[in-house]
Amino acid sequence: MTSDPRQLPAKTGTMSRRQLLRLIGLAGGSAVMYQAMTSLGFAAESGFTGFPKLGAAPRGASVLVLGAGIAGMVAALELRNAGYQVQVLEFNDRPGGRVWTLRGGDRYTELGGDTQDCGFAPGQYINPGPWRLPHHHHGILSYCRRLGVALENFVQVNYNALLHDPVAFGGKPQRLRTIKADYQGQIAELLAKATRGGALDAPVTAEDQEMLLASLQWWGALDRNYAYAGGHESNDRRGYARDPGGGPSGAPVYSQPLKPADVLQSGLWGFLPLGELYDMQSTLMQPVGGMDAIAKAFGRELGDAIRYRAKVVDIRQDERGVTATYEDAAAPGSPQTARADWCVCTIPLSVLGQIPMNVGQPMADAIGAIPYAGSTKVGLQFKRRFWEEDEHIYGGISYTSQPIGTIGYPSHGYQSPGKAVLLGAYVWGHDADRFNAMTPAQRIDQAVQQGSRLHPQYPQEFDNGMAVSWHRVPSAMGCFALWTESLREQHYANLCAFDGRIVLAGEHASYQPAWQEGAVNSALSAITRLHERAVDSGAKA
Amino acid sequence: MTSDPRQLPAKTGTMSRRQLLRLIGLAGGSAVMYQAMTSLGFAAESGFTGFPKLGAAPRGASVLVLGAGIAGMVAALELRNAGYQVQVLEFNDRPGGRVWTLRGGDRYTELGGDTQDCGFAPGQYINPGPWRLPHHHHGILSYCRRLGVALENFVQVNYNALLHDPVAFGGKPQRLRTIKADYQGQIAELLAKATRGGALDAPVTAEDQEMLLASLQWWGALDRNYAYAGGHESNDRRGYARDPGGGPSGAPVYSQPLKPADVLQSGLWGFLPLGELYDMQSTLMQPVGGMDAIAKAFGRELGDAIRYRAKVVDIRQDERGVTATYEDAAAPGSPQTARADWCVCTIPLSVLGQIPMNVGQPMADAIGAIPYAGSTKVGLQFKRRFWEEDEHIYGGISYTSQPIGTIGYPSHGYQSPGKAVLLGAYVWGHDADRFNAMTPAQRIDQAVQQGSRLHPQYPQEFDNGMAVSWHRVPSAMGCFALWTESLREQHYANLCAFDGRIVLAGEHASYQPAWQEGAVNSALSAITRLHERAVDSGAKA
Repeated sequence: MTSDPRQLPAKTGTMSRRQLLRLIGLAGGSAVMYQAMTSLGFAAESGFTGFPKLGAAPRGASVLVLGAGIAGMVAALELRNAGYQVQVLEFNDRPGGRVWTLRGGDRYTELGGDTQDCGFAPGQYINPGPWRLPHHHHGILSYCRRLGVALENFVQVNYNALLHDPVAFGGKPQRLRTIKADYQGQIAELLAKATRGGALDAPVTAEDQEMLLASLQWWGALDRNYAYAGGHESNDRRGYARDPGGGPSGAPVYSQPLKPADVLQSGLWGFLPLGELYDMQSTLMQPVGGMDAIAKAFGRELGDAIRYRAKVVDIRQDERGVTATYEDAAAPGSPQTARADWCVCTIPLSVLGQIPMNVGQPMADAIGAIPYAGSTKVGLQFKRRFWEEDEHIYGGISYTSQPIGTIGYPSHGYQSPGKAVLLGAYVWGHDADRFNAMTPAQRIDQAVQQGSRLHPQYPQEFDNGMAVSWHRVPSAMGCFALWTESLREQHYANLCAFDGRIVLAGEHASYQPAWQEGAVNSALSAITRLHERAVDSGAKA
Repeated sequence: MTSDPRQLPAKTGTMSRRQLLRLIGLAGGSAVMYQAMTSLGFAAESGFTGFPKLGAAPRGASVLVLGAGIAGMVAALELRNAGYQVQVLEFNDRPGGRVWTLRGGDRYTELGGDTQDCGFAPGQYINPGPWRLPHHHHGILSYCRRLGVALENFVQVNYNALLHDPVAFGGKPQRLRTIKADYQGQIAELLAKATRGGALDAPVTAEDQEMLLASLQWWGALDRNYAYAGGHESNDRRGYARDPGGGPSGAPVYSQPLKPADVLQSGLWGFLPLGELYDMQSTLMQPVGGMDAIAKAFGRELGDAIRYRAKVVDIRQDERGVTATYEDAAAPGSPQTARADWCVCTIPLSVLGQIPMNVGQPMADAIGAIPYAGSTKVGLQFKRRFWEEDEHIYGGISYTSQPIGTIGYPSHGYQSPGKAVLLGAYVWGHDADRFNAMTPAQRIDQAVQQGSRLHPQYPQEFDNGMAVSWHRVPSAMGCFALWTESLREQHYANLCAFDGRIVLAGEHASYQPAWQEGAVNSALSAITRLHERAVDSGAKA
């Protein structure tokens, strides 16, 4: 027996353990992130319990917020509402940080100098950062409501989407519905057999066994003999060889299940639970028109409290306050300063670690210790929605064990004529390192090449693309804080604790890494503590 | 062992077989319909293979279409495009038939004379008939594209929705995610145990067993000991006791799985496969603004080719053509006639059986033999979206074994302020018979009372309602043709075959009963055959 729940057999069937791990691990990228989190015991739902009720700020108290991502803007909004004088410094010329949407006409220059001009058609976009909102992320959803951000459904699971591995089934993509129905049905058949053979007599009472059999039959689509076979029960899950229709010749023709050993050895079952993970469970949502609708709404609210293109180059605190020195991000030199009583710093640790800042060793060690996950997203524009027109795939995600991992189809604008953009790659781990090293054009080329194995229409229909590798994004230099259990034990408390007049916030200071929700909850924790200190120190003064 | 796949144990745990059957059978109504279909071997996906290419109609050829539902309008549109002179007679004062949307200001009088004035707020609606479009219903989706009907997502499965039975868990509703995760995890644990105990040695090779165990661990969220326990694996599916958050105290608290025997005996697992049935698999869609957007688009296209408020009272064919006699539906008397070479009759059999028509015995017998399913839908308007605000349920369906069966939350307009309408009941079978016998006010009252057991906010938040019992809808007198296997054998061919110059179309003349797709495919079959005959008879003439 393996001793680790994520350990997999060394070699089974046609797949090596490495292949299988990769298959599961790379299933859409989110899986990697997620497994990391779950194996650490920190994961999904929000700790949000409502907007903060801070009470009044001490007279004249001021706060400097570094970074106008979600954490920074939540902090700024709530502190300003409580009466603090708030100033926000933001590196980019837009609010949102990693909450970012690319559209036609946008220009993006990555670290290393490669510049891309986005050629997407009007109305088309890609979210290089977060692209979905779980229904239980109450914090960010509450801000969406408060700021009037319209939401629509994001489709995660599409039974008609594809599961693909270059080895499994000769490289032929399978429909998710087929693999799901067959795996589930064959599991149910095995358990029904074991039950009827008396193998469960010890753990399960006779009464419960009867109920178990009834449930397996319905749940697994078994026939009257508790077999998962090629009849109406299975076809009502896995689909038909010829679909039912109308008129005299409308009768369907049944399809036959795949062989159980083929299903198991394909490893494609590894993709099935992805939509069952807490953060991926339906209902998921997205802002209408792009994720930056959230960023823009905060930005509108904060107005000129945010100074854009302000690159922080030094952070220095003393007994009375905090001073940040910044330059024009587009034209370095001519440093300016901003000063306040307190500082909420939301700069990603990957960037913050390079900025001189006089904090104590515990926080400094924490900032330096946490690596950042790499990830690449590629948006591909095609001449038409062939995935809908030819293959009847409306929204949702196809998975492949190739480095691109994910093909995400737009959950909106169904059946619209003209060009459309899909997520052509969502790369993680070592594959992301390789993608970082490529030029944007090479990444796009890889996405088109690998995607062609799922959709042969790709080469003919491809129009243009945009590729964002997070380690090359100047304001982030990584995708999200990659906590491990031991890093968490060693550094998390120190990272979150106040250091003098400075407190950190952002997804990195939460148990919800990579999610906007983590940014919200971290910010609320930070400002609640800041306000207590400010009131306390005001009382002392 | 039971001999029928739908047979269930006579009595298990706290539930009687009858209770359990009801629980499964009434799960959202659609299940009843669906089980009936699957047990007959006719079910889900469309036989649509593209728009018909009829070629040119014989000079001067004419067709009378009875009924401006989807089948009638598809037939009329395609025949007119081929050059036929087409006239459509429609009972209602709107196109669509059962494709129908009720909004504020609408007045509806049912058989028996009860009249309801819809008091829904602007933008709110209920679809008393079809309310979802499966992604594989290519026919109706193709017409949506062609006619410019905008589509959006319909959420079927919501992991945060409720499963409820008055007996199970003391009547306390359970989250779908909890029951799903626990049932699946406990199944996986049992099978892993059986596998490791050697029970599967005969049917499964050692190699496959190793792969099976790896898959069960991941798929069932088992821990390193192949147990489904209260740790991070299970909580990443079933949810937490306290959700992860941000800042120093953001660590989650784990929840504990329900007892396996309680899960089994609750019978709530009966609701789990509903979203896995072929017609309910995501992606599902709905027209933006109400299902009648499809009806209106066809209606606009056909313009004054449709005569509304025309109640057909007699259908008579001779060797040269077909004459329909009709009256003003609102003011009977003063019969008029319409005549054409051919007739496509899409009037529901429940109504058609009462109209004198000179067809042969086989078709007449078929028309008389097919019963119609009963169903009641109740739309409830509430003062606010408490299901979103208080319970974080965005779209999707809660199920209860009470007669109301289903509570369907709107898949659109998330987080909108003000009043909102949900589907408060979707009643089937004998329960529908009982609801037919009630006044609309009583049906609404029942929906509010029963729904209160899932949502205690109901009484306080309820605003008004609309109740449609399909056996009391004058133009339909039933919900859809309730085929059985023996009825299908005896009558289906006769129902679909031409009788002289008359051919029938509609969902009742398809292997996709109750679906718009069945109406489309049935109409395409009918007009294709009509055209062949017309050309043939034109050639002979």
